[in-house]
Amino acid sequence: MAHLLTLTDLSLAEITSLLDEAEEFSEGKYWRAPELFFVANLFFEPSTRTKCSFEVAERKLGLQVIPFDADMSSVQKGETLYDTIRTLESIGVGAVVVRHPEDQYFEALRDSIAIPIINAGDGCGHHPTQSLLDLMTIRQEFGAFRGLTVAIVGDIRHSRVARSNAEVLTRLGATVLFASPDEWKDDTNQYGTYVDLDEAVQEADVIMLLRIQHERHEEKMGLARKQYHERYGLTVERAKRMKDRSIILHPAPVNRDVEIASCLVECMQSRIFKQMENGVYIRMAVLKRAVERGMENGNHLKKWQVVQ
Amino acid sequence: MAHLLTLTDLSLAEITSLLDEAEEFSEGKYWRAPELFFVANLFFEPSTRTKCSFEVAERKLGLQVIPFDADMSSVQKGETLYDTIRTLESIGVGAVVVRHPEDQYFEALRDSIAIPIINAGDGCGHHPTQSLLDLMTIRQEFGAFRGLTVAIVGDIRHSRVARSNAEVLTRLGATVLFASPDEWKDDTNQYGTYVDLDEAVQEADVIMLLRIQHERHEEKMGLARKQYHERYGLTVERAKRMKDRSIILHPAPVNRDVEIASCLVECMQSRIFKQMENGVYIRMAVLKRAVERGMENGNHLKKWQVVQ
Amino acid sequence: MAHLLTLTDLSLAEITSLLDEAEEFSEGKYWRAPELFFVANLFFEPSTRTKCSFEVAERKLGLQVIPFDADMSSVQKGETLYDTIRTLESIGVGAVVVRHPEDQYFEALRDSIAIPIINAGDGCGHHPTQSLLDLMTIRQEFGAFRGLTVAIVGDIRHSRVARSNAEVLTRLGATVLFASPDEWKDDTNQYGTYVDLDEAVQEADVIMLLRIQHERHEEKMGLARKQYHERYGLTVERAKRMKDRSIILHPAPVNRDVEIASCLVECMQSRIFKQMENGVYIRMAVLKRAVERGMENGNHLKKWQVVQ
Repeated sequence: MAHLLTLTDLSLAEITSLLDEAEEFSEGKYWRAPELFFVANLFFEPSTRTKCSFEVAERKLGLQVIPFDADMSSVQKGETLYDTIRTLESIGVGAVVVRHPEDQYFEALRDSIAIPIINAGDGCGHHPTQSLLDLMTIRQEFGAFRGLTVAIVGDIRHSRVARSNAEVLTRLGATVLFASPDEWKDDTNQYGTYVDLDEAVQEADVIMLLRIQHERHEEKMGLARKQYHERYGLTVERAKRMKDRSIILHPAPVNRDVEIASCLVECMQSRIFKQMENGVYIRMAVLKRAVERGMENGNHLKKWQVVQ
Repeated sequence: MAHLLTLTDLSLAEITSLLDEAEEFSEGKYWRAPELFFVANLFFEPSTRTKCSFEVAERKLGLQVIPFDADMSSVQKGETLYDTIRTLESIGVGAVVVRHPEDQYFEALRDSIAIPIINAGDGCGHHPTQSLLDLMTIRQEFGAFRGLTVAIVGDIRHSRVARSNAEVLTRLGATVLFASPDEWKDDTNQYGTYVDLDEAVQEADVIMLLRIQHERHEEKMGLARKQYHERYGLTVERAKRMKDRSIILHPAPVNRDVEIASCLVECMQSRIFKQMENGVYIRMAVLKRAVERGMENGNHLKKWQVVQ
Repeated sequence: MAHLLTLTDLSLAEITSLLDEAEEFSEGKYWRAPELFFVANLFFEPSTRTKCSFEVAERKLGLQVIPFDADMSSVQKGETLYDTIRTLESIGVGAVVVRHPEDQYFEALRDSIAIPIINAGDGCGHHPTQSLLDLMTIRQEFGAFRGLTVAIVGDIRHSRVARSNAEVLTRLGATVLFASPDEWKDDTNQYGTYVDLDEAVQEADVIMLLRIQHERHEEKMGLARKQYHERYGLTVERAKRMKDRSIILHPAPVNRDVEIASCLVECMQSRIFKQMENGVYIRMAVLKRAVERGMENGNHLKKWQVVQ
């Protein structure tokens, strides 16, 4: 399949291959699409970093990026996502990157759209390039995943990152711990064990903080920022009890002094901005895969019949 | 004139020449602007397909596209369209593509703006590149226009497509039929004969469906979608009575199961996505014309006097 | 310092060097960034001309422009400007252009952001590229600044242009006159002498009109447009009393028949559109400086520690 919708769709071999290729891109590997290849980034939710990261990756591969403004689009006129993407395909776009607020928006498209779809986040569902960049950052530190303990901390229930990462880290042989307020526990996610935050911080090799998505979940925690930080955040005090070689990850944007003390964002153990850098290399690898597979599918533009 | 504002401005020879050039682009013809040439797409109304189609065409010709966000522009500060375009001209933009909600917005600009303006839709007025891509799609099927019967179906009164196409198809020797609810008939359009929808479907070589522009016209039809579809839409039942070689066109975005049964959108007789593909080639031809004429006008940037 | 935040930060030698380079660009000088260099334009306020002008300048230098939509950005999620720019830096952006409604937004960034920041306007504060293009336009006419009389007319208090220009013109040896309604006088600006508008018009070599920023200042003048024009605008009558070689500048967008009679906008003495053209060359010079200094800083992406 040319799409990249969830990491669950990928074998460990495919995941490793994407990580290897991303690593090569981080070391300066040069690869360019062999012809004028158009992509469009369809972002139906705000996101600076993911959209810009894809844009940089696309330009580095020499792709032509067609601007797509979801606010100005015909989706405003009630057009389905299928029709929007088929339209883009018809005008010559060879792959699309989609961020959409609806969980699994892509199930209606998986078998009906011929050009590769790269999922850049679906509702509370998946975010495969974020997971891959987390994996890349972890592998750069520790060389492998087997035997590592990864604590995922925060709003487990509404997090795409928690969902994607717990599954793939377990598959890769890591042990996953969850630390979360009761309201945000996720009984449907079987890939981690809930522990106390202080225990998680002390045992983990990787502390993966989640963003409090004020703009997404509807329940209110009823806690002031400061209270939340004390109870469920990575405070300076807690950070002192981390293991020596442990690292801190966060998908960003960070709510400073909520999920993490502001002064820890760029501390020695933080890889938060390193994750962003790695995101570009991951997206280059994922886009290269899409371009190559999209071109194998080939000539999709020739399929309309012309009566002679 | 370097502008392309309405098809009425063009002779049949000019129209044929644009169609021929678009056909060559569809077959892979390569043409590039001979120097760094800037264009801007000024869309004061939402439109995925037209804007993206122009973008792809522009990139294929090697043009530099300057992003222009109408929402963020100085038009918000009360600036006239003339001043906006003169500004773009001053900073080096060599041609503009304009979509605007006001009918004939371009009359105030026609003689005062030196760089080519390509009209990408004015209110309920004209949409010349849409008409040209319709003509291209028809000519690909039938080789010529004389003797063809083209039925234009739906909201005749508010449609740019009905207006532009009826006039040019009549000029090209085709017979135009209109089928429309009474509320949407257009007494000012003399280029077609009103007939019953069922008659139109059976007689036409080309069934050109119009979009119900919920966002544009103010009158309500007072019909549920399903009722409208039964009375005025291309149902599966009606489609069975089409002539064997007849084709279906629609300017899109389609309201599925309103103007046309959803299952017909990609049926054998539909050229809806083919139209979109052709739109890119038409826009390449139109842009090439603008670039060539814009460069003949030349050196417009040198016209400010510098006192020595 | 690689940033360009205010003209006050620059020595006269640096200013002259930027003007000289811009002049060379206006004469066709070719300079390209030596490698794939990414920039982003962060516009948190509407502005057609400044944003498009930077875009054209960036493309002319072969820079890769990463689209950034402030409305869709994580700033909507409460992210700080520091984190936004650090994010862009992390994904490989080498310089940013920022327009922001807050005065001196850049003070929090000046020492903490490694990549060059080009200030494209801060609140009622500074707008250095606008000032430079004004200087360039004046120097093209008169060859030098010493001995010139420059009248700045209009809303002195809320104008970035008045603030930047009065200081730098005084430093360059020009005499600055202000003409303004009482409500808009600025006691904190010591670089000009308030005179009557009619006196200003007759004495000035350069009449620099300011925009009435309806969207910015909160006080209302309580005058109809026509009244304002008669009392404080450049009317046809007043223009007749200008000196022979005097010129008219305006930062645009122009409120026609308010600050200036509509028929004067493109008159022989107006350099309003010439200013816009010069803006592109100024921005090319400023961007070239940023690229060169940004590359000297070098390898900022390598600063995250990877524990081996």
